[in-house]
Amino acid sequence: MGVRAALIGGDWGTSNLRVFRFGADGAVLERREAATGVLAVADGGFEAALAGLIGDWLADGPVPILLCGMVGSKQGWVEAPYAACPAGLADVAARIEPVACGLGDVRIVPGLAATLPDGRRDVMRGEETQIFGVASGDGLVITPGTHSKWARYEAGRVVGFETFMTGELFAVLKAHSILSRLMRGDAPDPAAFELGVRRALDDPALSRLLFSVRTEGLFEQIAPEALAAYLSGLLIGAEVGAATRSADATNAVVIASPAIAALYQSALAIAGVGGCRIVDGEAAAAAGLWRLAHPT
Amino acid sequence: MGVRAALIGGDWGTSNLRVFRFGADGAVLERREAATGVLAVADGGFEAALAGLIGDWLADGPVPILLCGMVGSKQGWVEAPYAACPAGLADVAARIEPVACGLGDVRIVPGLAATLPDGRRDVMRGEETQIFGVASGDGLVITPGTHSKWARYEAGRVVGFETFMTGELFAVLKAHSILSRLMRGDAPDPAAFELGVRRALDDPALSRLLFSVRTEGLFEQIAPEALAAYLSGLLIGAEVGAATRSADATNAVVIASPAIAALYQSALAIAGVGGCRIVDGEAAAAAGLWRLAHPT
Repeated sequence: MGVRAALIGGDWGTSNLRVFRFGADGAVLERREAATGVLAVADGGFEAALAGLIGDWLADGPVPILLCGMVGSKQGWVEAPYAACPAGLADVAARIEPVACGLGDVRIVPGLAATLPDGRRDVMRGEETQIFGVASGDGLVITPGTHSKWARYEAGRVVGFETFMTGELFAVLKAHSILSRLMRGDAPDPAAFELGVRRALDDPALSRLLFSVRTEGLFEQIAPEALAAYLSGLLIGAEVGAATRSADATNAVVIASPAIAALYQSALAIAGVGGCRIVDGEAAAAAGLWRLAHPT
Repeated sequence: MGVRAALIGGDWGTSNLRVFRFGADGAVLERREAATGVLAVADGGFEAALAGLIGDWLADGPVPILLCGMVGSKQGWVEAPYAACPAGLADVAARIEPVACGLGDVRIVPGLAATLPDGRRDVMRGEETQIFGVASGDGLVITPGTHSKWARYEAGRVVGFETFMTGELFAVLKAHSILSRLMRGDAPDPAAFELGVRRALDDPALSRLLFSVRTEGLFEQIAPEALAAYLSGLLIGAEVGAATRSADATNAVVIASPAIAALYQSALAIAGVGGCRIVDGEAAAAAGLWRLAHPT
């Protein structure tokens, strides 16, 4: 039945479960995806949900399974306590948490916790695996998304990071606020996106800028079809503006799907930051899972 | 049946309709309130909704009726086009829009529109009436709420203003985002509120600060019962910080309910801005309706 797998990796987040079957050299032989994210799985249902997606991959005998993401949170399968920054690959690998279950050798990657200068904490789960999958030289690694992370990677360790609620703000404002009233769809619109980015770079007061999504629609300065792109520009512009004011983002690595990565690349360019490198989020997660399973 | 009314005033917003029956000297003889806000009234249903609340006030004969708020928007009863800033009481009064209906002399106060230096527009409906109800000397007038307005009042005119989506952000984040997961209730908590205000004054990057509502709960730095107050502090702090960086808010007038006004007074004090004067929002609306009906 083909090559025997050396590892099964899983990126098990809030909304989705993505699995990878690796050959002995770390190449991804096959991938699958299901909408059985952590929020969709009832307590006690994690083993069955995973078996449902990869049961046939285990038919020829046991294969080690390594999972990352919210599956290791309090709401997940088994809690894998955060590793504290600064943390390198070996530090995280040493804290991988075993899961007692009928699927054999199943383990969960811990998330990372950081303490900011003012005492605030910050956390990630899943992004650490993507970062270890791609990071090589020192610099910033950005993982845009529901909760965008900007991590500083130095000498093989994540030394700190901070989270922006960009994607979630976009989603809740688009679904539940007055800003959605005049919006039609959410197709890309580079001009409206750029206008939003520029305004947010000029004025860091996001809660003041946001109302302009309504007024630019009311006064027909921006077409209904372009208002979502304008809102996206304001939010990503606010994120890029704040993050690049406090750190040099030249040559940052952006880990995301191509569409999202292009928006960040554009916003970084508008902010005058050059040289960013784009890595696909799924490829990063797969590479990170393989590396964490083979830390030495 | 008591004193014959000289005017019936109505503040008809998105969620509520508040009406005032005025005596000949402008004193409020009686007030009533209903949850028949503009969003709850179907097209063609405005006359019946108003008659249902004040029909008996018209039993002795016609009384002029003046309405302000979202009732004059496109989604309202009759659209009363915005007056452009700078605009004084007489400018607004001159643009009051008559309504053809069976209740006699019914008219609607227009909202105000402003153009910001970068070309963005801003709008208000209802707050202009509150501002004309209370403003006297030059200075800032703040109307906290779903969409907080900061208006500059000079020489009897509203010369400009800007809107912060503070109240709506609080509502959508509390109802629909991950920040609500660890929250329990929304009781006041002065210490958590102040911490939020101070952090937002120190860091204008709101979308970065917001995630700390989750992490401060996760790491049990802030009790679940105090997280809503902390979120409120972050949002009001971001508003006060941005607004006071661009204008001198000393001796500002804050038009709001006592509970909300106290939060803004506290945030202004933390920001080092003294001397603010608090006026109850309902009293301000009533006074403004009376003045707009008697502009000379």
